[in-house]
Order: sequence, then structure tokens, then C-alpha cells
Amino acid sequence: MQIKKLGEFALIENISRISAVSDPQVVKAIGDDAAVVSLDRAACLLVTTDILKEGIHFKKKFSSPFILGKKCLSVNLSDIAAMGGAPLYYFVSIAIPPDTPYSFIRELYRGMNAQARHFCAQLLGGDTTASQDSLVISITLLGRAAKRTVLYRHGARPGDLIFVTGTLGDSALGLMMLEKGLGSPRDVLVKKHIDPQPRIEAGQALACSRAASAMMDISDGLLGDMQHIMKQSGVGARIFLDRLPLSAAYKRQCPRLSRDFYVPALCGGEDYELLFTVPRRNEKRVRLLAEKLALSMTCIGETTDKRPGLVVVDQNGTRVRPLPTGFRHF
Amino acid sequence: MQIKKLGEFALIENISRISAVSDPQVVKAIGDDAAVVSLDRAACLLVTTDILKEGIHFKKKFSSPFILGKKCLSVNLSDIAAMGGAPLYYFVSIAIPPDTPYSFIRELYRGMNAQARHFCAQLLGGDTTASQDSLVISITLLGRAAKRTVLYRHGARPGDLIFVTGTLGDSALGLMMLEKGLGSPRDVLVKKHIDPQPRIEAGQALACSRAASAMMDISDGLLGDMQHIMKQSGVGARIFLDRLPLSAAYKRQCPRLSRDFYVPALCGGEDYELLFTVPRRNEKRVRLLAEKLALSMTCIGETTDKRPGLVVVDQNGTRVRPLPTGFRHF
Repeated sequence: MQIKKLGEFALIENISRISAVSDPQVVKAIGDDAAVVSLDRAACLLVTTDILKEGIHFKKKFSSPFILGKKCLSVNLSDIAAMGGAPLYYFVSIAIPPDTPYSFIRELYRGMNAQARHFCAQLLGGDTTASQDSLVISITLLGRAAKRTVLYRHGARPGDLIFVTGTLGDSALGLMMLEKGLGSPRDVLVKKHIDPQPRIEAGQALACSRAASAMMDISDGLLGDMQHIMKQSGVGARIFLDRLPLSAAYKRQCPRLSRDFYVPALCGGEDYELLFTVPRRNEKRVRLLAEKLALSMTCIGETTDKRPGLVVVDQNGTRVRPLPTGFRHF
Repeated sequence: MQIKKLGEFALIENISRISAVSDPQVVKAIGDDAAVVSLDRAACLLVTTDILKEGIHFKKKFSSPFILGKKCLSVNLSDIAAMGGAPLYYFVSIAIPPDTPYSFIRELYRGMNAQARHFCAQLLGGDTTASQDSLVISITLLGRAAKRTVLYRHGARPGDLIFVTGTLGDSALGLMMLEKGLGSPRDVLVKKHIDPQPRIEAGQALACSRAASAMMDISDGLLGDMQHIMKQSGVGARIFLDRLPLSAAYKRQCPRLSRDFYVPALCGGEDYELLFTVPRRNEKRVRLLAEKLALSMTCIGETTDKRPGLVVVDQNGTRVRPLPTGFRHF
């Protein structure tokens, strides 16, 4: 069977099976936003890695190398945020076409470095090689978190509230604009796509306050990512279309760009917002946190028993079927 | 300036400058086989990363996916060996052409897993994505070492002896055979190229015994790699051609494959043997270690004052000039 027929998630499941882990120091291996390894009685090490390939994850013409560098790091920072951790050190493996101008690579690393400094992470190593075709950037980021506050995908219970930070679908619309040649780097939707802001502060605040029961970041689209929390927590979920937080720019541009008004918000990738579940008794704690951080945290639904699976309800109370599907690598 | 004109080493130097590190927990950032971070009073964390690209680092037709998987891990294991550490956890980021058979990827991960288990390392995570052209595999490996025994490239002093484990140049000859269509996977030179054995045990033994003053692995060729130790230790080096450890297969095949009999041993990449310096008073300790491990450790020269730089002396006592040069990525 070809990889494209097997699909990304089946592939990852098979890989986990080949490499089952039995180390008591390992708190979480494959299957969450980052791996979690015990460091001492109180702290654990978080490790996440992402690979970005020119033509698949980015196009050079869509952003400056500095902004691209920032995004490469943000994608990893977002995974550490999703565990409620603090970033520490990063490592960059890069395959570079030999005719690339040095100034491009310098700006790329400057962008990574700027974003890293902002979030107190430091470059400690990497590997460089030639590439006969496209630019490939693979970053591994290490972070740290208190053991008793780390947030996993598996902590949700039926009846929890489902929240997201910020707004949804902006990045997907920004990408559509770029692909149609409509976007400028200053456009708010384009900016969300090329220069997303990882929610490190919010992730840490949610973890430290113990307000949330499960958390992950939204990288492949809300519906797809929600199913990871559902699967790992053994719950279902009901999402209300009319509660999805949409930016003013989304509301203005979406009708021109997408046939279905809600699809970019439900299935668009690369928002890098946090998706988290909250026991109802903690709802007020989340509202206070949102206020303190000046970051919107919107309740978009609730977890349910496992049986109904993922249900999306439209503004008339009608169940949406079939569900639109998100981005798949294969 | 294009990257190919700047060169790999200048690129890495420039990158280090962009991202200078001031964290007191960081014992070693960019510039050694692995980064070293303090864990507690006694232990430190080692982190290394390598990126392997189809067509640049490997060709699918030269080995089975299982053996390729082993090698991908070995390259990283060798970096941990070079610090005298023990491997712990690894992370695999992979970009896969969508028409790749799943069986290929399964065997690749099985190979990685087999090599990892042999050296007590475990897969904890990674990232998978599609690639529109070639297969790319980027591995990050974490390891552990006792703080007071970690071996760096910077510890050599003038007058130390220079040693290597195993034999040199076999991998380069193996690759030449494969490229000429002469090699079979059972050939000892080919095997050394497609399935190198990382010197984890020897690295740890050299570190624990405190016999060596500096160490690294030979991945880009003896002469090129020796210059890293020279630069970081502030020493020169004198290498004796007639002391280079050459395998019987090397002696037999090299005259057919290479115009210069010593070039594959001096400049051939991917031997993944250890290159280390030893204060003269510890020479006997190294001989005993080699016996105990049943692994040859050969004295090939000595470090000198910085001024003469790198000097190679042939069997007649004549200085070889100009020095042949090793593999460069750009």
C-alpha cells in the first residue's frame, strides 16, 4: 500500500506500534503535542519536532525569509504552549539548495532567533546539508514544565466545555488570498498565516491555574484536531457553529474566498490557537485568565459521551452532515 | 553570496554568531558533536541532530530500507558516542513522497528501532509530512553523560597522541564500489558504508576511564575532522601515513578504486570511527581498553604546537603537500 492511501494518522499509529516504549522516565511518548520525560520529582522535559518543506509548507514568494524563520520556530513553540510548558532550547536541521543566497539563510536564522528570544529559547545546534531540490527546515524544540500541571490531550471528561483562544480560520483565508495573488503581508489574514503567534503565555497560564483538563494546538484544523482530544480522552464533542470566534476580516473576506462560510474556521489549518477543555466549575477561572491576558478565550461547545462522536450544530440547531474534512498530508 | 561559495563551515560560524547563547545551564552550544546542557550537579543532557536527504546522503538502491533505517540512527548514535554519552531518546521528522510503499517506511522504522534497541534508545516522537520530490529523514537524539567525564573537541594539548578506533576509509571505498555497480551488501567495504557501527561502548569507556583529552567522530573524513579538534583545542597535528589503520579489504580494493592509495583513508567520509587525543601518560590505559573491548585503537600521530597546523608525513618521512581535501556539502 502506498503512503498516500494509508494516510498520515494510520502511519503514525503503525510507527508507534513498531517502537513501543517501556521506560518509567517517559511520561508520554508519541501521540501528544510534545513528548514528556521526567527530569526530577517536580519537573519534566518537553520535546517536539516539526519538519517544514518548501512547496508543501511554505512558498518563498509568500513571505520574507525573516518572517519565514519566525514561523518555523512558532510552529514548534505552539506545541510547547499546548502542553503548558516554557520553551528552552532549539536545534535546526536544514537542507539548502546550493544556489540559495547567503542573505536568505542569514535572515531565516535571524527570524528564528528573534522569535526564540521573545520566548526565551536559544539555538544550541543543528545540521546543515545541501539539497538538490527544495529547502527543508526541521526544528526540534525542548521545553520544560512542572510535572503536576502539564496538559495532555487525554484529560477531557464528558460534560467539559470546549474553548479556543483567538479566532479561527484566519490563517486558511490568508493562504487562499496569497494563492490568488490578493494578499499583502500587512493584511491581517495573511499576517496570521505567515506570522502566527504561538500562545505560550496562555498555555502556561492555563496549565498553572489548573483550569483546563486537556489541551492541544490547532495546526490541522479544528475538527481534525478536536478528534485527537476525543480519541485520547474517550469522549465525544458537540461544536456550535454560531459560537466559533471569527475575526472581522474573516467575516468580510470569507464570502469572497470560500463557498462555505464556516469551512475555513472548522477545517482550516495553521491557526496555532489553543484548543482546550474546561470542567464547568472552572469556567469563571478561564474568563478571568482571558481578561488578564487580553486574549479572547471562547467557549465553542462541550464534550459529551463517546458514543455520538463529533457533532456540529448549525445556527438553527440542525446537525451538520456530512462534516467537512481538514487538511491531510497524504 | 551563494551558500555554495560561502561553504558549510563559514555558514555554521555565521549562524552561531547570530544566535550567541548566555544561559548558565548550557555547557556547550553549537560546535561539538552534540550540545551539552546541565541537568543536575552530576549529569548532563546531550542533544544531536542530523538530516539525511535521498540523493545527497543515500540512494534507495544501495541498501534495504531496514539497513537504511539503522544507518539513520547510527549517524546520530555516533555523535553521542563521540561525547562519551549514553543514548536515551530519539525523534524522527520525515518527509515522504506520497507514492512510497508503506512497507518501505515500515522497514525503515523497524531498522531504526532495531539499532535503537541495541543501544538502549527509544523513539518518543516526530513529525511526518509529504514530500513532492525526495525522502528526507531528520533525527534528533538525546543522550546522557556524567558531567565530569564528557569529552569535547577542545580538550587536546600539544604533545598528546592521536588515536582512531577501527579502520579508516572503508566506507568511502564501499560507496565507490556501489557507485560503480561493483558492490554487494555482503562486501565488507560496502557493509561499512551502508551499515556503520557507532562506537557507543568505546566512547563511554574512553570517557569513563578519563584516558582521552578530546574526542569526536569521523564523519567528514579524518583530515577535515582533525581540523575541528585542532581549531577548538588550539593545537597543530602531525599524522603519519604509514600508521593509518587500513583493513585487508581496503588494501586489496583501494588500488583498483582510487588513484591515490591514502586519500580514502585521509579524506573519505562516513567512517563513524572515533578520533581522540590521549595525553602520553594515558597511552597504556588506551591499549588496555582496546584489548578489553576487542576494538583496535591505533595511534596515528600526535598533536603539536598550533603553528605548523596540520602536517601529514609519508612513509619516507616527507611532508605531503598539498593536502588532499575531504567532502564538502556546499
